[in-house]
Amino acid sequence: MSQPIISPQNQRVKDLVRLRQRRERDGSGLFLIEGYRELTRALEAGVVFTDLYVCPPLYLGSNEPGLIAAITSAGAPMTELGEAAFRKVSYRDRPEGLLGVARQSPTTLDRLPQTVTPLILVVESIEKPGNLGTMLRTADAAGVAAVVVCDPATDLYNPNVVRASLGTLFTVPLAIATTSDTIEWLAGRGIRSVATIPGARLAIWDADLTGAVALVVGSEQYGLSPTWRQQADLEVGLPMAGSADSLNAAMAAGIALFEAVRQRR
Amino acid sequence: MSQPIISPQNQRVKDLVRLRQRRERDGSGLFLIEGYRELTRALEAGVVFTDLYVCPPLYLGSNEPGLIAAITSAGAPMTELGEAAFRKVSYRDRPEGLLGVARQSPTTLDRLPQTVTPLILVVESIEKPGNLGTMLRTADAAGVAAVVVCDPATDLYNPNVVRASLGTLFTVPLAIATTSDTIEWLAGRGIRSVATIPGARLAIWDADLTGAVALVVGSEQYGLSPTWRQQADLEVGLPMAGSADSLNAAMAAGIALFEAVRQRR
Repeated sequence: MSQPIISPQNQRVKDLVRLRQRRERDGSGLFLIEGYRELTRALEAGVVFTDLYVCPPLYLGSNEPGLIAAITSAGAPMTELGEAAFRKVSYRDRPEGLLGVARQSPTTLDRLPQTVTPLILVVESIEKPGNLGTMLRTADAAGVAAVVVCDPATDLYNPNVVRASLGTLFTVPLAIATTSDTIEWLAGRGIRSVATIPGARLAIWDADLTGAVALVVGSEQYGLSPTWRQQADLEVGLPMAGSADSLNAAMAAGIALFEAVRQRR
Repeated sequence: MSQPIISPQNQRVKDLVRLRQRRERDGSGLFLIEGYRELTRALEAGVVFTDLYVCPPLYLGSNEPGLIAAITSAGAPMTELGEAAFRKVSYRDRPEGLLGVARQSPTTLDRLPQTVTPLILVVESIEKPGNLGTMLRTADAAGVAAVVVCDPATDLYNPNVVRASLGTLFTVPLAIATTSDTIEWLAGRGIRSVATIPGARLAIWDADLTGAVALVVGSEQYGLSPTWRQQADLEVGLPMAGSADSLNAAMAAGIALFEAVRQRR
């Protein structure tokens, strides 16, 4: 093992901090994974690590050495950081002393597993990383066959997506595509697209969500694009009472997903 | 109008910052409301303001003077803050130049409006203000008769509850009570309590959620207390697939609430 890096001004520390920026992630094809649970899920899902940074004084439990051995034996060199340096690279309130650098995976539509009557979540131009991560976590809990991210506004490898997804980013089959490619891909596979639109006449409870179905959810601020609104097979809404403008976008997606789960039992 | 406060070191600025702490809110009976939308909803809901702080260079639109006139004519003095001082008291990333100090309302069970077959959301010991706020927003969208907050871990008047609730904190009928008082109150009114427990045998879709019903949701980390688990009329679960431990607590509450809405149409 090399010498610990003590200085927060060290160039490698600065490079890690830079990976919080989308431009750096897009350019390098790398991203950050922080925390015991997230690293464990990534490892189990076959994510390839290029580096592992640790800070033993910050460990929360006693299982860290096992996880570290598994990651380093898969080929990622380990570097120890001093506490000040680790706190600088951590994006959490309570750092756990474990930060991995990993390779982004290819995420094209043609790599998605084929299933006979899939339930798919399609999300378009989600802006908040926390919402996108929560949608992944909820889609995983609903047992979807895949999540398709159309025209991303926040990229999938934003640290807050990784965090809010609780590691499901690594386990849910994922594709990134344009809206038009997604529409063509769904149509070519006989998968009906069901667009969720606030105020749509048909209540989601009255729509048939069995069979091969993609639930399509739009951005927090603008909803679905005109392209989706013109080309979706069906528009459904969630009847709401109350004074607030609408549900949070991730909440609306979760309620729609579990209505599909209910119908498909 | 008095002179603008320029210095972030001014005592009144410090007092406002202190209201972010629960102890200060509990002691004074006051809390902070920031932003155009939240202040408008609070005003419409009859919330009583004791002070209004403004910073005109930060206004986002042109409707601020109307809102300010309405709040000040209801009796709250207005004080102008310089930009540095306002940024210090603001708890938002993008301050809008509007911050009110308001009186907390009495929130006892006996003040809740009486309805014949209410749908009520009961939440116990929620820890994260953002989750509690999202639960209020979602309960509002589901048209609940009331939200009862049992044994609060985060108080209702935390600035992040106010923010995440999008102002529904002021419009949804609310009570704060102990778990045992809540159980007694529900039983006395013939309201069935339905506890949501991860892994419960009965799926929520197979439970009858019509009539007078309280859906009971536990804390993020510990779930429902033994008291609730022993005394609830029914335990229901949400069947889940996937690798993540569970849904976010607010998401689980939202899915349960809208299943009740579906059954009660």
